[in-house]
Amino acid sequence: MTAAQNNRPRGVFAAALTPLKDDLSPDIEATIGHYRWLLDQGCDGIVCLGTTGEANSFSLDERLALLDALGETELPAKLVVGTGCCAVPDSVRLSQKALEIGAAGVLVLPPFYYKGVSDDGLYGAYAETIERVGDPALKLYIYHFPKMTALDMSLELIGRLIAAYPDTVVGLKNSSGDWDSIAAMIAAFPGFDVFAGSEEFLLPTLELGGPGCMSATVNLLAPQSAELYAKWQDAGAEALQEHLTALRTTLGRSAPIPSMKALLARQSGHANWAKVRPPLVALDTAQTERLAAELAAQGLELAAAA
Amino acid sequence: MTAAQNNRPRGVFAAALTPLKDDLSPDIEATIGHYRWLLDQGCDGIVCLGTTGEANSFSLDERLALLDALGETELPAKLVVGTGCCAVPDSVRLSQKALEIGAAGVLVLPPFYYKGVSDDGLYGAYAETIERVGDPALKLYIYHFPKMTALDMSLELIGRLIAAYPDTVVGLKNSSGDWDSIAAMIAAFPGFDVFAGSEEFLLPTLELGGPGCMSATVNLLAPQSAELYAKWQDAGAEALQEHLTALRTTLGRSAPIPSMKALLARQSGHANWAKVRPPLVALDTAQTERLAAELAAQGLELAAAA
Repeated sequence: MTAAQNNRPRGVFAAALTPLKDDLSPDIEATIGHYRWLLDQGCDGIVCLGTTGEANSFSLDERLALLDALGETELPAKLVVGTGCCAVPDSVRLSQKALEIGAAGVLVLPPFYYKGVSDDGLYGAYAETIERVGDPALKLYIYHFPKMTALDMSLELIGRLIAAYPDTVVGLKNSSGDWDSIAAMIAAFPGFDVFAGSEEFLLPTLELGGPGCMSATVNLLAPQSAELYAKWQDAGAEALQEHLTALRTTLGRSAPIPSMKALLARQSGHANWAKVRPPLVALDTAQTERLAAELAAQGLELAAAA
Repeated sequence: MTAAQNNRPRGVFAAALTPLKDDLSPDIEATIGHYRWLLDQGCDGIVCLGTTGEANSFSLDERLALLDALGETELPAKLVVGTGCCAVPDSVRLSQKALEIGAAGVLVLPPFYYKGVSDDGLYGAYAETIERVGDPALKLYIYHFPKMTALDMSLELIGRLIAAYPDTVVGLKNSSGDWDSIAAMIAAFPGFDVFAGSEEFLLPTLELGGPGCMSATVNLLAPQSAELYAKWQDAGAEALQEHLTALRTTLGRSAPIPSMKALLARQSGHANWAKVRPPLVALDTAQTERLAAELAAQGLELAAAA
């Protein structure tokens, strides 16, 4: 069976933002509304509680409460849930909850506090998490984001994990921003689903047989990303990728999370959209207007947000 | 009132190891025993649940359970408790628990997942934590460990926090390993207690008016560190510092946490002492014997461990 034939997640995934309430707690209702809006905008699925969703700024209880609420909706089959914490017991608890609500998979950061740890140590953390969850239904995506974790995820380590848990360790989100790293991982592990961490690599990822992208900036660029995903084998695909890359570059240049939240506040009229949890800092109005003008000049018409 | 005249923590603090049980959960009874042994060995106090204590590898509940148990002992007045997490609500909960049991202070990492965050963002995280705890009894030590957090703690940021919360933000643990950084912080903020993060800087820290050190390797070098602290104004202080630095260098050269745990297992006969949580990896017997031999050659007689 090829990757294209199985029923695993493929296509364009937004690493979804989490709107906050006045007290900076996750606004669960607004979050569910945002996920639905992203799917309406053309996303194939949602990364819930990833880096862009400020997951690590929420307590375990806040994350579990959001997952419980999502469990009451039609959304879980479309969700890959970020569950990787510094503490293995927390990763286990969140992964079990993701399974319980019927999420399509879990996206697992390596424990990211200690630096300079060995492959054996990272292997141990993933293995301990998988063994403690102890459920063959678990579909685990390794989350490689070296700019945040300052940890490498070597091909040897990935290969060891796939070999030990072939039915569980099914893919990886590569947010290195380094095309050579993405291409090397796709080439090294046929049938293992390496998602590009940015839509700027969507076309080359698909051309190499990869499944798609999981990306922060898809929160605002879902229609453009979905169009490229639909037409990637057509003649105009290169031009669509070029425009998408230009927009992504502008949007991702600095502070993408506060930037996208500020733009969604501007679009939707909901001022709370602009709120972020520390250590992130909200954009001010002048910064937001400058960014919106720059994107408009590049031809981006932002859809009215939920 | 000078720093020497107030009753704030001073002297030699071990950033204490946390012994584990077979299931890798914290062995609370053994941890309490280790803290008492460290005080018997000459420590003035204990950093509980810091980096060396593998705190970030424990769930919030595991940490709260240890603090509750410590609250039933005579130890809290000797404790500075690591409470800094990525999520502000977790830092708040742990800091409140530390206050509840009567700990001398809390040691607070900046939220360490996001990188490249601004001073405003880090300020916001500390301010939000302090405001939510909302207790004037809170004595907060900033925890500066750039090798782990990949975050800077600028003099300007520290100054803003001291100015905003002068009765709360009372000190800092500087684990940069960079003497110039420690010296600059001591010089910049008179009356603010900048602890060196290593006993290799104990003498120069005291000479500049600093309060002492909080260090991982004091788990094995407490008597030598305590002797230097007692005699730092004596003629032989330089020689004591040189020997202490040599031992610390050997012990801290690679994987200090597994190394010290392995040596304590060897000393005490309790094999569980060697256990670490992933992503750390335990030393094997050959590595342990090599290290013990090297330390013995440098004149280290390890005291029988608890």
